[in-house]
Amino acid sequence: MTQLELAKKNKISPEMRFVSKSEGMPVDVLKNRIREGRIVLIKNAKRKINPCAVGEGLRTKVNANIGTSQDRPRIKPELEKMRVAIQHGADAIMDLSSGGDLKKIRKAILKGSTVAVGTVPIYEAAIKAHKKRGRISRMTKEDILETMDEQAQDGVDFFTIHAGVTQNTLERLNKKKRLMNVVSRGGSFLVEWMIKNKKENPMYDHFEDILKIARKYDITISLGDGMRPGSLIDATDRPQIQELILLGELAEKARRRNVQVIIEGPGHIPIDQIESNVIIQKKMCNNAPFYVLGPLVTDVAPGYDHIVSAIGGAIAAYHGADFLCYVTPSEHLRIPDKDDVKNGVIASRIAAHAADIAKGVPRALDWDRAISKSRAARDWKAQIKRSIDPARSKELRKSSMSKNSDVCTMCSSYCSMKIMDGCLRK
Amino acid sequence: MTQLELAKKNKISPEMRFVSKSEGMPVDVLKNRIREGRIVLIKNAKRKINPCAVGEGLRTKVNANIGTSQDRPRIKPELEKMRVAIQHGADAIMDLSSGGDLKKIRKAILKGSTVAVGTVPIYEAAIKAHKKRGRISRMTKEDILETMDEQAQDGVDFFTIHAGVTQNTLERLNKKKRLMNVVSRGGSFLVEWMIKNKKENPMYDHFEDILKIARKYDITISLGDGMRPGSLIDATDRPQIQELILLGELAEKARRRNVQVIIEGPGHIPIDQIESNVIIQKKMCNNAPFYVLGPLVTDVAPGYDHIVSAIGGAIAAYHGADFLCYVTPSEHLRIPDKDDVKNGVIASRIAAHAADIAKGVPRALDWDRAISKSRAARDWKAQIKRSIDPARSKELRKSSMSKNSDVCTMCSSYCSMKIMDGCLRK
Repeated sequence: MTQLELAKKNKISPEMRFVSKSEGMPVDVLKNRIREGRIVLIKNAKRKINPCAVGEGLRTKVNANIGTSQDRPRIKPELEKMRVAIQHGADAIMDLSSGGDLKKIRKAILKGSTVAVGTVPIYEAAIKAHKKRGRISRMTKEDILETMDEQAQDGVDFFTIHAGVTQNTLERLNKKKRLMNVVSRGGSFLVEWMIKNKKENPMYDHFEDILKIARKYDITISLGDGMRPGSLIDATDRPQIQELILLGELAEKARRRNVQVIIEGPGHIPIDQIESNVIIQKKMCNNAPFYVLGPLVTDVAPGYDHIVSAIGGAIAAYHGADFLCYVTPSEHLRIPDKDDVKNGVIASRIAAHAADIAKGVPRALDWDRAISKSRAARDWKAQIKRSIDPARSKELRKSSMSKNSDVCTMCSSYCSMKIMDGCLRK
Repeated sequence: MTQLELAKKNKISPEMRFVSKSEGMPVDVLKNRIREGRIVLIKNAKRKINPCAVGEGLRTKVNANIGTSQDRPRIKPELEKMRVAIQHGADAIMDLSSGGDLKKIRKAILKGSTVAVGTVPIYEAAIKAHKKRGRISRMTKEDILETMDEQAQDGVDFFTIHAGVTQNTLERLNKKKRLMNVVSRGGSFLVEWMIKNKKENPMYDHFEDILKIARKYDITISLGDGMRPGSLIDATDRPQIQELILLGELAEKARRRNVQVIIEGPGHIPIDQIESNVIIQKKMCNNAPFYVLGPLVTDVAPGYDHIVSAIGGAIAAYHGADFLCYVTPSEHLRIPDKDDVKNGVIASRIAAHAADIAKGVPRALDWDRAISKSRAARDWKAQIKRSIDPARSKELRKSSMSKNSDVCTMCSSYCSMKIMDGCLRK
């Protein structure tokens, strides 16, 4: 039975107990929200990990994308990136590999990862078809379902499924004239397939078959947004919202089949449209958890897109997004290296934590209180230890020490906190 | 005559014409907003620079703090930081030096800077008193006014004046029991002075004298927030708002004397309190431009506070803040180096630009449109050239080139944009 099925039958699973305890949410509240589809516990039934709990009232979670490309097919750097991501606090990993031995890479990541692992099965299915038959458009329904079944058996915890890229969606895209058409890799594979075969999206047509696989292993379906905008100019347009309507319908289907589901969201969105994007997602999809890629609040800062998406992610999570997919400084320029992964994870965690404070997630503010107490006491060791990246804060402090060990080189003996200690004690 | 005086007399200055043209704001609208105090043109009458225009409807501006400390008194690194800040797009610089030969440093910065330069004159006044008489509390009214007069003659364009740290404010502070009392350096100097001398803040008592100096040189007064919170726990508390009430009254006084004025704001503030902080500032201070330090939306990320404040700055500017003071990755840990300055300026510029798009500043979105067109065309040269930091984006791309020169190593030949080009052209 899936976690959703258990919740529907009013049963408390060990996974629910674990999350209830670690998040400080009463187990009945948690169970009810799972039943209503407002919370999912991401974990393949076969895997021995703690579930990644995503949804209303929980700590906002962070996902880090890793994976090979044709230009960079080696496994080792990806495993290293996985370790760096987990070490710096990623709550989930997605293996988006598209180069080299995909099965081998996936198995190594699943073996090494202590957190939930997601994939986009259409990548492997399309790449297999491309290799076997020379074209992505020669991919068959069987390619897709067999790939998914194999990945499910391997232990993948969540699947991105671009089932909302339909002929209906494409019609909206053709009418709209976007600046950037489709910037989702999975989306573009399916659009090519649909145009060349003049047929409906096989993931939409065979959604029930996909659900059977997902249900068997309790894989959470992440309904992908193939129409997410790739530029602020295209944000919140008709193709995007058309797809979202379909995702809402598909989410309902999934829940009816006891499959847990989350919804993926944009993308490049100006700040003033973020709240509306969260509200419309929640309304269209009966409050399913919202998993956002960014959002990126400007297009102009390649090299700094971790900062751009920390801004968007914090605002989205504050308004109710539940799961942030990180963006690295290398976005739009190259495959990320391990430093990019670290910086991406930390930027997203800052965004998630800042939002959690603002939306009143229990215990979130405790961390800030603790570090501020150390700061007020000029207890540098404790301040560093309590910081989000102790190695980094230690390195910065050590690189520039004051003659007076209780202050820093910014203000030296004119440290406001020290002055206040001096005069308030008298 | 100051710009405010000219505007009151319905006169259009060359500075107004320059700003009208560079910002795309009709000159009459600009003049009326200057008259109403909603916009200031920051520039000492003696200086030969373009004014830094701050306020309603204008592009959000970014300030970079530089300056020596007792531990790091050398001028050269500060001049280098100034150059880096201006090169990366800072609209203003503040010289916050507190170590070495303060006059010499200030003169060198004023000579080298092509943008507006601000100072906090109480630093020099207090440090002089400390050196001459052994204690900050032995600073006299004359120390303060003479310092200001000298700095005004040197050409300083704006002064931070902590005139809202009064006995009334201190009473609120004493009643409140903050986690961190006063984290403003200037604020702490004045609090020490007030407690030890049992007298009112001399900058409050002699505010009219300060205005005389400011008016003579058309120096913009930036009313400092000595009570800004240093931790989320202390945000938006009674001492902070008490000071803000006083700043509103002082702003009114300044305008009556034809002195341009802006208001400084927090500080460490959770996301859900930022909008209210902007609204209350605008209401208390008759829509004077709002100059925020950050805001920092969590306390836990020393080493990454440029990201923390980019989140806060973007949200604040979206809700109406007009001027962002950058925060560097070294905040809370050490005096920043030139890389920190660069990263701080760029993070703040991203925040400012993202907010400008969202609040509809004319032309802001043009930049995003242009870079997105290059991106859609996979015109890498143009994309890099149009990015916020071309050297950085070029470096990242060059470090990892694909075999296919029209894509990047992230997706290689499975580039969504390339696939879309392929199938939409047919």
